[in-house]
Amino acid sequence: MAEASAQKLVSEFTGTALLLATVVGSGIMAENLAGGNVAVALLGNTIPTGAILYVLITMFGPVSGAHFNPAVTFAFWLRKEIATAPAFVYVLVQIAGAIAGVLLANAMFDLPVLQISEKLRSSPGQWLSEVVATFGLVLAIFMALRARPEAVATVVGLYITAAYWFTASTSFANPAVTIARQFSNTFAGIAPSGVALFIAAQMAGAVMAVLLDRFLADSRR
Amino acid sequence: MAEASAQKLVSEFTGTALLLATVVGSGIMAENLAGGNVAVALLGNTIPTGAILYVLITMFGPVSGAHFNPAVTFAFWLRKEIATAPAFVYVLVQIAGAIAGVLLANAMFDLPVLQISEKLRSSPGQWLSEVVATFGLVLAIFMALRARPEAVATVVGLYITAAYWFTASTSFANPAVTIARQFSNTFAGIAPSGVALFIAAQMAGAVMAVLLDRFLADSRR
Amino acid sequence: MAEASAQKLVSEFTGTALLLATVVGSGIMAENLAGGNVAVALLGNTIPTGAILYVLITMFGPVSGAHFNPAVTFAFWLRKEIATAPAFVYVLVQIAGAIAGVLLANAMFDLPVLQISEKLRSSPGQWLSEVVATFGLVLAIFMALRARPEAVATVVGLYITAAYWFTASTSFANPAVTIARQFSNTFAGIAPSGVALFIAAQMAGAVMAVLLDRFLADSRR
Amino acid sequence: MAEASAQKLVSEFTGTALLLATVVGSGIMAENLAGGNVAVALLGNTIPTGAILYVLITMFGPVSGAHFNPAVTFAFWLRKEIATAPAFVYVLVQIAGAIAGVLLANAMFDLPVLQISEKLRSSPGQWLSEVVATFGLVLAIFMALRARPEAVATVVGLYITAAYWFTASTSFANPAVTIARQFSNTFAGIAPSGVALFIAAQMAGAVMAVLLDRFLADSRR
Repeated sequence: MAEASAQKLVSEFTGTALLLATVVGSGIMAENLAGGNVAVALLGNTIPTGAILYVLITMFGPVSGAHFNPAVTFAFWLRKEIATAPAFVYVLVQIAGAIAGVLLANAMFDLPVLQISEKLRSSPGQWLSEVVATFGLVLAIFMALRARPEAVATVVGLYITAAYWFTASTSFANPAVTIARQFSNTFAGIAPSGVALFIAAQMAGAVMAVLLDRFLADSRR
Repeated sequence: MAEASAQKLVSEFTGTALLLATVVGSGIMAENLAGGNVAVALLGNTIPTGAILYVLITMFGPVSGAHFNPAVTFAFWLRKEIATAPAFVYVLVQIAGAIAGVLLANAMFDLPVLQISEKLRSSPGQWLSEVVATFGLVLAIFMALRARPEAVATVVGLYITAAYWFTASTSFANPAVTIARQFSNTFAGIAPSGVALFIAAQMAGAVMAVLLDRFLADSRR
Repeated sequence: MAEASAQKLVSEFTGTALLLATVVGSGIMAENLAGGNVAVALLGNTIPTGAILYVLITMFGPVSGAHFNPAVTFAFWLRKEIATAPAFVYVLVQIAGAIAGVLLANAMFDLPVLQISEKLRSSPGQWLSEVVATFGLVLAIFMALRARPEAVATVVGLYITAAYWFTASTSFANPAVTIARQFSNTFAGIAPSGVALFIAAQMAGAVMAVLLDRFLADSRR
Repeated sequence: MAEASAQKLVSEFTGTALLLATVVGSGIMAENLAGGNVAVALLGNTIPTGAILYVLITMFGPVSGAHFNPAVTFAFWLRKEIATAPAFVYVLVQIAGAIAGVLLANAMFDLPVLQISEKLRSSPGQWLSEVVATFGLVLAIFMALRARPEAVATVVGLYITAAYWFTASTSFANPAVTIARQFSNTFAGIAPSGVALFIAAQMAGAVMAVLLDRFLADSRR
């Protein structure tokens, strides 16, 4: 990718914003309605998130690649499939879009637009979870791109559907998502103190996925 | 589209009726069975609605385009892809079909066929929600039509699955649906006083989507 | 179809048996575990039923057409796409397979293999529901066969997913299913007194679907 | 298949590990959150398992065939589509991967990494369930491979989604899964005393499926 056109940046911004509006908005709705049954609330958060990922990747994929995730952009950069400058701009726009989506969710539910989460997410199991979650996500994307590119939207939607449940952290797996979810003190929030280590774990998972994918690709040459 | 044939109008009528029978019928079933857990009831309303949208769009798409939604017909009209007269007839038929579907749902559940909802849906967050919900729906349809037309049925089904949860209004996103849901005093109902502003918000969202789609389409020319 | 080969009959028998094992088995599991929340139980009955329909139609479609349903075979017969003799044998085999599947479900859950349901299902709303449910199912099959034949398995799976919730009867929509579900006094059962009118309603719905489909097909000639 | 390359073995190991991490991890998450409603917990175990199967088969299918299951490898061996030596290595690697996945799930949830389940799973109904579950799984794979090979990932994901509910055993249907699930004393565990008969039942089901598939294939020659 030689340049990041205005269309590409608006695509990454809008897609990431709608993704976060869904993650945070459905979390608020689910928690409000679930009467304290957190598993029901997590179902009400999982199903919309998986669904919207399919929709957004199908919509925005042809415009900007539908990364919506600095860890994914970072992995493409490691593979030299995006240059440093546009990768950097992509990441900034993803973070801005993610924050805009969270504020939009707060507003739709008549909550204060600007909030800071107090939900502590910090334990060895959760850091391991973020490594595994991001490793699996990035590996799934690159392997599906080679095996069945038309299935990537389904693969990502279903992967996150699973990862919300099989990881102790409910699988953020995305630094822009992690940064933005500080700004809603609701079901999907994360207190600022937990953000840096989540992002470090996500980056480690992305690197591991790029390495394993490179090894496995040999079998199909 | 030069004319609205009898087949096209019956298709829009039948599809919109089955859509509303599902929205309202599954709402009644879900509320009856959920024992007061509203999140469980909303799951029981969401999953059937998303599922039937895929079915109806696959069935009726080749006949009438499967709009089932005046906001969608309006957006096609803004793009000059449908003329004024057939667009007007489409909208009337959609509203008639939607009301017929609601009455059918009432009858299937042995309730009085004609009812008026008393469920107030009126707050700034809900109006914003309807703008966002319709904006996302119309944008998803037009972008998917260009990117992967065979995926439109899936995109719409999964978009509404998500939007039931990420908006404070549970995403009506459809003026015919909004008008018809006045006529069932059950889970999915809306009191008449809330209808006009919901429809205004939906129209605003549709216009925004047409404009953004036009801008993004430039990147793929 | 000129003849009903042994492979075709084994296919209809096995497919209908696995369908009923799923409908009744998941009903038992769901009711056992749901702690009295019937909406949760119905979710646990709906999701497996929709899923197995996709699987069975994909598997058995190329062998026998994957009818699994006398109302569907009847509709194909009305359209003169299956002769009277093989249609008759299909229906007998479907009923036998359906009963075998119910007994298998009873056995898997360590219940008495032979039971008679005491669950009354008899009201005007339920009869109307069976007309609507079967009308929609048969219409969806024929319209999808013309519009996107490769989507029929998905269409049927998702249609029944919706119809479990939008009809007051939870959508039997299948005479073999109706007959067989007499033989399990569990969540999915139906008392014998309700069977005849359910089947009559299903047949009426199938006829209506064949007529409407014929009318709508004109628009695409 | 002439040889089991390093890429193939790493693919089977990684895929089976991620499958078990999902089965056990989502079981832990679901049980932790479900507040004693076991049907809700099983939904939270089912949906992620079905979803990850689609993802893993799409990812790893082109590398190793994505067996992840000694019963599937055994069935391919019965059909002489894999030689004895690579089949044997596949099975060993699947078991090792499965155990690694369970330990990973334990670690992600901050539980002791090494545990032994105390959950008794032993009754005639459960043994019959494992015969039926594995019969259906293997039959679905071979029939879908012939009918629509691109649908196999969807077929397996949805089959297991259904089988979690329609069998009394929640459908292990996989000897590597059965062995590995001994090592987590949580929702998805199985006490060691139940393992041998589960595996025997699974092998019987696989043989039956290979035989029936051979018979049915005749109709399409």
